[in-house]
Amino acid sequence: MTSSLTPEPLTSQFAEFLGMAQTRSATMLLQRAMIPRFRQACRLKLVPSRLCIQACSTNDSSQPQYPSLAFSGDNSSTRGWRVMGTLLGLGAVLAYHDHRCRAAQESPHLYTREEVRAHSSPETRIWVTLGCEVFDVTEFVDLHPGGPSKLMLAAGGPLEPFWALYAVHNQPHVRELLAQYKVGELSPEDKEPFTLKTSDPYSDDPVRHPALKVNSQRPFNAEPPPELLTENYITPNPIFFTRNHLPVPNLDPETYRLHVVGPPEGQSLSLSLNDLYQFPKHEITVTLQCAGNRRSEMTRFKEVKGLEWNTGAISTARWAGARLCDVLAKAGHQLCETEAHVCFEGLDSDPTGTAYGASIPLARAMDPEAEVLLAYEMNGQPLPRDHGFPVRVVVPGVVGARHVKWLGKVSVEPEESYSHWQRRDYKGFSPSVDWDTVDFDSAPSIQELPVQSAITEPKDGETVQSGEVTIKGYAWSGGGRAVVRVDVSLDGGLTWQVAELDGEEQRPRKAWAWRLWQLQASVPAGKKELNIVCKAVDDSYNVQPDTVAPIWNLRGVLSNAWHHVHVRVAP
Amino acid sequence: MTSSLTPEPLTSQFAEFLGMAQTRSATMLLQRAMIPRFRQACRLKLVPSRLCIQACSTNDSSQPQYPSLAFSGDNSSTRGWRVMGTLLGLGAVLAYHDHRCRAAQESPHLYTREEVRAHSSPETRIWVTLGCEVFDVTEFVDLHPGGPSKLMLAAGGPLEPFWALYAVHNQPHVRELLAQYKVGELSPEDKEPFTLKTSDPYSDDPVRHPALKVNSQRPFNAEPPPELLTENYITPNPIFFTRNHLPVPNLDPETYRLHVVGPPEGQSLSLSLNDLYQFPKHEITVTLQCAGNRRSEMTRFKEVKGLEWNTGAISTARWAGARLCDVLAKAGHQLCETEAHVCFEGLDSDPTGTAYGASIPLARAMDPEAEVLLAYEMNGQPLPRDHGFPVRVVVPGVVGARHVKWLGKVSVEPEESYSHWQRRDYKGFSPSVDWDTVDFDSAPSIQELPVQSAITEPKDGETVQSGEVTIKGYAWSGGGRAVVRVDVSLDGGLTWQVAELDGEEQRPRKAWAWRLWQLQASVPAGKKELNIVCKAVDDSYNVQPDTVAPIWNLRGVLSNAWHHVHVRVAP
Repeated sequence: MTSSLTPEPLTSQFAEFLGMAQTRSATMLLQRAMIPRFRQACRLKLVPSRLCIQACSTNDSSQPQYPSLAFSGDNSSTRGWRVMGTLLGLGAVLAYHDHRCRAAQESPHLYTREEVRAHSSPETRIWVTLGCEVFDVTEFVDLHPGGPSKLMLAAGGPLEPFWALYAVHNQPHVRELLAQYKVGELSPEDKEPFTLKTSDPYSDDPVRHPALKVNSQRPFNAEPPPELLTENYITPNPIFFTRNHLPVPNLDPETYRLHVVGPPEGQSLSLSLNDLYQFPKHEITVTLQCAGNRRSEMTRFKEVKGLEWNTGAISTARWAGARLCDVLAKAGHQLCETEAHVCFEGLDSDPTGTAYGASIPLARAMDPEAEVLLAYEMNGQPLPRDHGFPVRVVVPGVVGARHVKWLGKVSVEPEESYSHWQRRDYKGFSPSVDWDTVDFDSAPSIQELPVQSAITEPKDGETVQSGEVTIKGYAWSGGGRAVVRVDVSLDGGLTWQVAELDGEEQRPRKAWAWRLWQLQASVPAGKKELNIVCKAVDDSYNVQPDTVAPIWNLRGVLSNAWHHVHVRVAP
Repeated sequence: MTSSLTPEPLTSQFAEFLGMAQTRSATMLLQRAMIPRFRQACRLKLVPSRLCIQACSTNDSSQPQYPSLAFSGDNSSTRGWRVMGTLLGLGAVLAYHDHRCRAAQESPHLYTREEVRAHSSPETRIWVTLGCEVFDVTEFVDLHPGGPSKLMLAAGGPLEPFWALYAVHNQPHVRELLAQYKVGELSPEDKEPFTLKTSDPYSDDPVRHPALKVNSQRPFNAEPPPELLTENYITPNPIFFTRNHLPVPNLDPETYRLHVVGPPEGQSLSLSLNDLYQFPKHEITVTLQCAGNRRSEMTRFKEVKGLEWNTGAISTARWAGARLCDVLAKAGHQLCETEAHVCFEGLDSDPTGTAYGASIPLARAMDPEAEVLLAYEMNGQPLPRDHGFPVRVVVPGVVGARHVKWLGKVSVEPEESYSHWQRRDYKGFSPSVDWDTVDFDSAPSIQELPVQSAITEPKDGETVQSGEVTIKGYAWSGGGRAVVRVDVSLDGGLTWQVAELDGEEQRPRKAWAWRLWQLQASVPAGKKELNIVCKAVDDSYNVQPDTVAPIWNLRGVLSNAWHHVHVRVAP
């Protein structure tokens, strides 16, 4: 865990982190409206207002109707939030100092809620309230990490309902950032606190297994600890890594319907679970991996934006369901000459009703050999709620972000999904690209993932016995490419030994699941420390890069450099 | 070019180098016969015989009927041979000292040709002659770099006809190795030199473009110089890299027939060129790359066995022909549930009549999207003889070794081709594997290649002007994966810039051709030297490894580490 602060603008990482979505058209519209105003910014007087805000914050947080969602008392969770808070706070303040308009007043102006409501567009300027305070965030809208559209939802009103959903906001550093935009306070008659009418959207999330290492509670993101991860070839459902972008919807299997949009010459379908069961049931073992798996190693090199996944954002299950190609064919879809995409929408949604979304190329969806599933079973059980009950997409060999959970809608479109997560996230960039220069359109959305491996035993910092050491781990590659070899080094990569591959033999071109591996190695006599390294090779003979720095990217995705574990040898 | 000697056993590299093939059954039979005898070896007295042999060799080589094929006077060629000679010679002598039986006599025994002929099997021991000398090579047969079966062809007779084909033998170091096995000389009445009845099998090879940098003359292997390689997106036919394993057959287009073996329920086809023209003509741009491209960089780290390719064993052409899937379908083939392979045989063959051969999975062959061609045109012209006239296989996205030239036969088999080049070559291994421990069955045959890139301008060692430098190169990946980015560094990989991709836009999943790229970069003021590096990323976000050592392998294939070019900056 690094604690160094890299002062860089924040944008898209929050979209993943906070579960925010936006349509491109909305963003463009807003940007067009904002940018001229943004350029005439910085005209208000800057006065330190931190103490005032902090006092006020303390008051706010003591009000029970403002849920203090972030602080669950869970250590892992708190650590995750702390990093995010750091990012959102001082780092951001430093980075934005050129652009930002700082506004505050020595003796506060007083405004009514009526007056605040009148400031809800770029033309009238954009005000929001938090507790008793009023903020003019016009100049910040365009810089909002979750996208302008998300902040605009609160324009003219209180922030609390939104902060309740995205608990990461409720941090001293965020309040400090907001304080820069303070323009006054609510007049005494309007000072009664805003009553949060929506219930805590996460209150209905399922109960989770205590072994999971939680990277964020709301939305819930957690990974199994390495020592459990490779204990089983098939990951038990309760410890399968969980990557949620939004609250978990609570869907009634009786009334659940999957909407499949048909082509003009076909038919749209509204499929009940029972309808889905009528398609031939297809069962396959597939490893899912988050694009952010092993992000923490990138963070150690240089701060990135995203959840601090260790090596556990990967798991393997036996999935069963209808093949997507069968369902699409039933609706009348067929492969077309021009490139097309199958867009998925989840039934998890944010306060605007925007659902999680993603897409895959139609060619993959329609290829029976690609075995894309609309899965309703995970390891012989109905899907757990955290994993998409009652139906999720499973796209073998492809990044987890396309395996849309709580699937509500499937459509075939000429373009990729306009979802934030398809277009403004889950893409890779050169190490030289930062948040000031990033052009998300310049990179393809991640679909197939590169070859990957990690050591799960021994653990970093452990002390091993002299004599022999058992090294275990996993290896996987995207696109159905089989892992053909794992090399292990005890000396940081100077010399290598070939590990033994365990786990199921894979079918050619359909190596959808990982291989577990192990090596029984002699500890060289006299060694006090070992720098254990692993690297895998897939059947296209792609290999993992040696080091993290040259593949570092601002979102911390695709972290697949050699995995290192340093251990001490017992004397 | 390294001159260091690594004393390691030699086996399979020669198979590629010398164009040797063998069937598995023959090899296994021989091994079964040889190994017990091999174990009771080393019973003959070792006497230095070098001087005697050298004298004798000198005599031999002055005899005009023993073609001295290797020494063409071409510098590039000579350099290639020199490295090979080194490998075959001292290195081998050092390495084999444990196993080898050294045989020689102080005053030579005399044998008739009749007596020599009687020694042609493991049971009778295996003798051969060279010039006036007689050798018992029984213990060497199993160690023969080209495989036992190749040496067995000469059992009981003269080596000269075979050395004429594989000119690399005609080296002082090879003679020195052979000298260890001398058992006597031919009796005076049989001393008249062996008359080589077969003409030089390479005498009919086509005339080549002088720009080609020749790595071996016989068989012909040559690459375009880097400065020409990326001058054109489509490589002109005369400088397209050439990888021959055997002499170039001279085929008559009128009588040429392609034999396509049908399934039991189908029909075998014997297709003339005109028959092939009747199938729909399919035209695609495909980059071919030899598995050994950039091998010289591996050699620099540690000696490997193979031709010293630089960055030019890669080229791009527009190929036209019939789709393999159409031809297979015509013969009645279809995809089967169990894994099967399409085996190709060339009409180039060695003295035993064994043809060059290779195979690809049936699934790829039958997939219209994979666009495997039986090509009869290269850049709008009939195939040049060096590139397979009249018909070759083109397997987009797959290693060059499967693009069988001078195609004679296509069949569908339950197993991969038993060709030496499919089973005992063109595979990747861990850096820890050497010729004593290699198990060729443990690695999959190379099909799709990993992501690759190289700098073609400026050249290593060049002096560039201060101010700006233009850096150019190519990038490609196997399996139809598009190159999505090329990062370039001027400081050895500490910082990176994104290059501009030129060349044709690729179709999704069918990025069969390379992208050329360039970067106009400022030379940092005060820099006297630049360590220019490039690395590419494909659309599965696979990247090139940082360094050579961890991907080093005994055959020097799959050399795709970052490419470095060191230049001086003019003051």
